[in-house]
Amino acid sequence: MGMENSISIDGAQLWSDLMETARFGATARGGLHRLALGADDLKVREWFAATCRALGCEVIHDSMGNQFARRPGTQPGLKPIMMGSHLDTQPTGGRFDGILGVLGGIAVLRALENGKVQTRHPIEVVNWTNEEGARFTPPMLASGVFAGVFTEEYARSRPDRDNITLGDALTQGGQAGAQPCGQHPAAAYFELHIEQGPVLEAEEKTIGVVQGIQGMRWYEVRVMGRDSHAGTTPMTMRADAMWAAARMIDAVHGVAMSHKDGLGTVGIVDCQPASSNVIPGNVMFTVDLRNPSDTVLEAMEQDFRARIAALAEDCGVEAIVSPVWNSAAVHFDPTCIACVREAAEEERYPMRDIVSGAGHDAAYMAQVAPTAMVFIPCLNGISHNEAESAEPTDATAGANVLLHAVLLADTRIDAA
Amino acid sequence: MGMENSISIDGAQLWSDLMETARFGATARGGLHRLALGADDLKVREWFAATCRALGCEVIHDSMGNQFARRPGTQPGLKPIMMGSHLDTQPTGGRFDGILGVLGGIAVLRALENGKVQTRHPIEVVNWTNEEGARFTPPMLASGVFAGVFTEEYARSRPDRDNITLGDALTQGGQAGAQPCGQHPAAAYFELHIEQGPVLEAEEKTIGVVQGIQGMRWYEVRVMGRDSHAGTTPMTMRADAMWAAARMIDAVHGVAMSHKDGLGTVGIVDCQPASSNVIPGNVMFTVDLRNPSDTVLEAMEQDFRARIAALAEDCGVEAIVSPVWNSAAVHFDPTCIACVREAAEEERYPMRDIVSGAGHDAAYMAQVAPTAMVFIPCLNGISHNEAESAEPTDATAGANVLLHAVLLADTRIDAA
Repeated sequence: MGMENSISIDGAQLWSDLMETARFGATARGGLHRLALGADDLKVREWFAATCRALGCEVIHDSMGNQFARRPGTQPGLKPIMMGSHLDTQPTGGRFDGILGVLGGIAVLRALENGKVQTRHPIEVVNWTNEEGARFTPPMLASGVFAGVFTEEYARSRPDRDNITLGDALTQGGQAGAQPCGQHPAAAYFELHIEQGPVLEAEEKTIGVVQGIQGMRWYEVRVMGRDSHAGTTPMTMRADAMWAAARMIDAVHGVAMSHKDGLGTVGIVDCQPASSNVIPGNVMFTVDLRNPSDTVLEAMEQDFRARIAALAEDCGVEAIVSPVWNSAAVHFDPTCIACVREAAEEERYPMRDIVSGAGHDAAYMAQVAPTAMVFIPCLNGISHNEAESAEPTDATAGANVLLHAVLLADTRIDAA
Repeated sequence: MGMENSISIDGAQLWSDLMETARFGATARGGLHRLALGADDLKVREWFAATCRALGCEVIHDSMGNQFARRPGTQPGLKPIMMGSHLDTQPTGGRFDGILGVLGGIAVLRALENGKVQTRHPIEVVNWTNEEGARFTPPMLASGVFAGVFTEEYARSRPDRDNITLGDALTQGGQAGAQPCGQHPAAAYFELHIEQGPVLEAEEKTIGVVQGIQGMRWYEVRVMGRDSHAGTTPMTMRADAMWAAARMIDAVHGVAMSHKDGLGTVGIVDCQPASSNVIPGNVMFTVDLRNPSDTVLEAMEQDFRARIAALAEDCGVEAIVSPVWNSAAVHFDPTCIACVREAAEEERYPMRDIVSGAGHDAAYMAQVAPTAMVFIPCLNGISHNEAESAEPTDATAGANVLLHAVLLADTRIDAA
């Protein structure tokens, strides 16, 4: 282990790779527009394959276009330890979301190569197709097929705005490989990512040791009152759907604040008939509740439903709460988490445990392989935005933790 | 007075007039689409003139197209006592708003004629042009010119959606008369109208003795927080503009409830960027505050501004309150109000004092002549809607009160 511990990431090269690939889909404001399997995504995929081959790797595509670059291991029969994320972006995305996890993986391959390190397991970097869901909904579509969450048939049928299906785009781009998606083995999976939130930056931590991904539940609430004249209807004779909705929106905040680690957000509000002097009779708003614990999340939902019902009655309106979507909490593998923590300790980076608030390919990978994630800070917590930014030193630190976590995993996974 | 008191409205004829004129601009849903100076408005104007001439009246138009039908009085030199309202409607308006006040005036003329009643003052019915403001904004445009609130030049320059000005529409429709608008004398003005609110119906009162028109102030509130990710931003690090706006909207309700006779309405809410999993960074909402007393309304504004400022600070956002429009409270003439009340007492109609929540031509007429209004109930308080409805017995009662109020005013105004 002595030699392995002494090796480290070439941060300048990693940064150079980040900036070089940012040419593919660059926007005027310094962000990226690189939709899945579009012309720029095809270019960066070619760059990925060429770069990994130059490092001595074999690169294959599975049937969903997921790219796997493999550096061989020494012990026959072991499955690969995998690192990765995605190279596609939001329509006005940044230069780090997803990309850091793939290029960080390449930086690890390079460090192993430069250090002439032999690992027991093959070490792989994967680029997952269509993580963002910006061109083909839903997000994390190809890692979802990989984990058996979606059928490949369903995924290939998903259309973009021009009615081109993901299946057609894979064929036209020459990205569909012979290996059926999901049959590629994995001994463990590590994903390096920017936090996409403000916690690490605010606490001046370099590394987030990600424990899992919180559970999420989405709802639509419809509030039905009665349209009436703002000048002629006494306060006591109103059925004001917006007043009721306002109290309910405040209650969503209250629900989040009264449950440990709870989050509650109302992002969309549609108030009708939308005239200054008409009391609104119909309001729809969305609710996003999250918690790292599904048990607490369930308690939040009960609390939320009870508050909505009480407020509807108090305001003399009707309210219907409809569940729209939910995603159970993900708990990462203790061994993989320990590898990340110990790697960060070795490198003496300021760190904290953290739960991911957003979804990642790692959420699905955790269903089929021991999985963990590494977070680094991003400027002001901003992501899905052209202003998304990260520091070169933090990117290097994150890749160093990825490198040493993989090396630790190489000794611990399948150790028996 | 004996003979005058014994006369009364021919309710069947009034209802017949209401239904007959409802042909002009009838909609499939039983409402009216009769925009000011459009083809159907021109037809009902012709009907108005012909009907009044058949009752022995002289009919003239002033330069804003206001129609005046005059039944002569006995005492030379007295100005006319005027009744009226408007015959134009909202795009999907009802069959009573405005129309009842004009046709009720005609019913009064008919009762006087049938009863061979001689009045000291000339008695007039006026049809005001473009009260609704639906074709040419703002509302009450021609009564506003009459009262000197707007210049005629401004009013004539107002364009409709097809860029036809009110001045052009008056000329093309042959509605502009020789008499300069505002030079027509008025000894008093009485306007019969549906309440457009639910109070009389709820309290089973036939007549509302209108004391005036409440003051109204409109504002826009802009709340500025920070867009951020619903999953990755802890509750304590948010600047959630929608949460703040929700509490402010509740506070608008609170302001209305804590001031006597206060009304407070948020009719429009615009929440951006409007994504389920993005904490809103920008919210705009409108506020409509009303009170019969300008002093109380000013106190409501101060209370409102203080609550918005406190909530903005508490929620960590910025808020800007911009006044958009205001209209001072109108207090009707005590003598005219007494005529209405005593007329309702004579006829033994259940009644109550009421303040108009909506604007009317009477608001401007009150600036140039002693003025009062008579309200009758309308179904469920609904107005500006094709479902607007009133009972024939209530329409008759309202016109009877109008008749006897005018007769009382005839003895009291200019009595010296």
